[in-house]
Amino acid sequence: VSDIIHYKFRQHIEQIIPLTDEEYNFAVAHFSSKTFLKRQYIIQEGNYVDNDYYIVSGLAKSSYTDEQGREYILQFAMNDNWITDPQAFYNRTRATLNVYCIEKCETLSISLENKKKLCASLNKMELFFSKRITEGCIAMQRRILCLISNNAQDRYQDLLANCPGLIQRVPKTMIASYLGVSRETLSRLILS
Amino acid sequence: VSDIIHYKFRQHIEQIIPLTDEEYNFAVAHFSSKTFLKRQYIIQEGNYVDNDYYIVSGLAKSSYTDEQGREYILQFAMNDNWITDPQAFYNRTRATLNVYCIEKCETLSISLENKKKLCASLNKMELFFSKRITEGCIAMQRRILCLISNNAQDRYQDLLANCPGLIQRVPKTMIASYLGVSRETLSRLILS
Repeated sequence: VSDIIHYKFRQHIEQIIPLTDEEYNFAVAHFSSKTFLKRQYIIQEGNYVDNDYYIVSGLAKSSYTDEQGREYILQFAMNDNWITDPQAFYNRTRATLNVYCIEKCETLSISLENKKKLCASLNKMELFFSKRITEGCIAMQRRILCLISNNAQDRYQDLLANCPGLIQRVPKTMIASYLGVSRETLSRLILS
Repeated sequence: VSDIIHYKFRQHIEQIIPLTDEEYNFAVAHFSSKTFLKRQYIIQEGNYVDNDYYIVSGLAKSSYTDEQGREYILQFAMNDNWITDPQAFYNRTRATLNVYCIEKCETLSISLENKKKLCASLNKMELFFSKRITEGCIAMQRRILCLISNNAQDRYQDLLANCPGLIQRVPKTMIASYLGVSRETLSRLILS
């Protein structure tokens, strides 16, 4: 693990909870560093999901493909985001999602076993993960509200705020798929 | 707190993690018992949110009302569900949601302070809350997928599975609002 990865990851944790050097070294020892190339899959539908991934750099997406082959994008993950198939990861079942690298991704990954060990031995990391999942839930609830109220404009603004620069890095069809709108509706959102 | 409430609540916790009598008594001492009448608000938009509520019996909904006065239902909570405005509860900000009793509700409520104390002193309850929020996230992710893929049928089936009997207990307009569909679409879903 390079210095820049350590620097970014420690900053990411310490935005929520400060750690001593000893605590940080103990925590990071539970993670593995993995690099995925552009167009590689981090998780493939049908496989078991061994890890939760922190994206150090690059850009990935998680998506579901229906029986007609249509793809629905659940999440984009770039610097400082985490991505996995949570259902498969936490329940040790097979993935129903794909996680795909739109750009080359440097990641730090943690297995469920290591996550449990880490949380059991360092309460600060338990608090970190708990805070993070709570924030994730709140963001998802907001997205659900925007979806049931059919407010595509807010969904688009939230995406811009959460993933600055994303719009320049991915095809418009992906943005439309994430928002659950047509290409035509997306064009109107971009112009307005 | 009556025996039946203790029985239900302990069963609810022990579905995830078994507790000794001593641990259960310690945990439940962090909760308060409150009854809300039909048509009362558990949480009102604009107020601070002091508690997370476990619904022992009855039926409540959380919803957002937009500037045009249209209501969007985020959640129904009946036996064994938890309900609050998570954003306001965890961030100690003012509620943007209403939580309203469709039927008289018996609840056990816990403040954020007590929740933190409880989790810090009894790791099993930390695990309980963490497991519950993870399951909540997974369910929300599924709902988001059903929404962006415009799959109202699956959304309807998920609601029936999560809240058995709900359809007989609330007006159809509320079900339609939860699903984000028109009354006409809902009628087609019910018939199909």
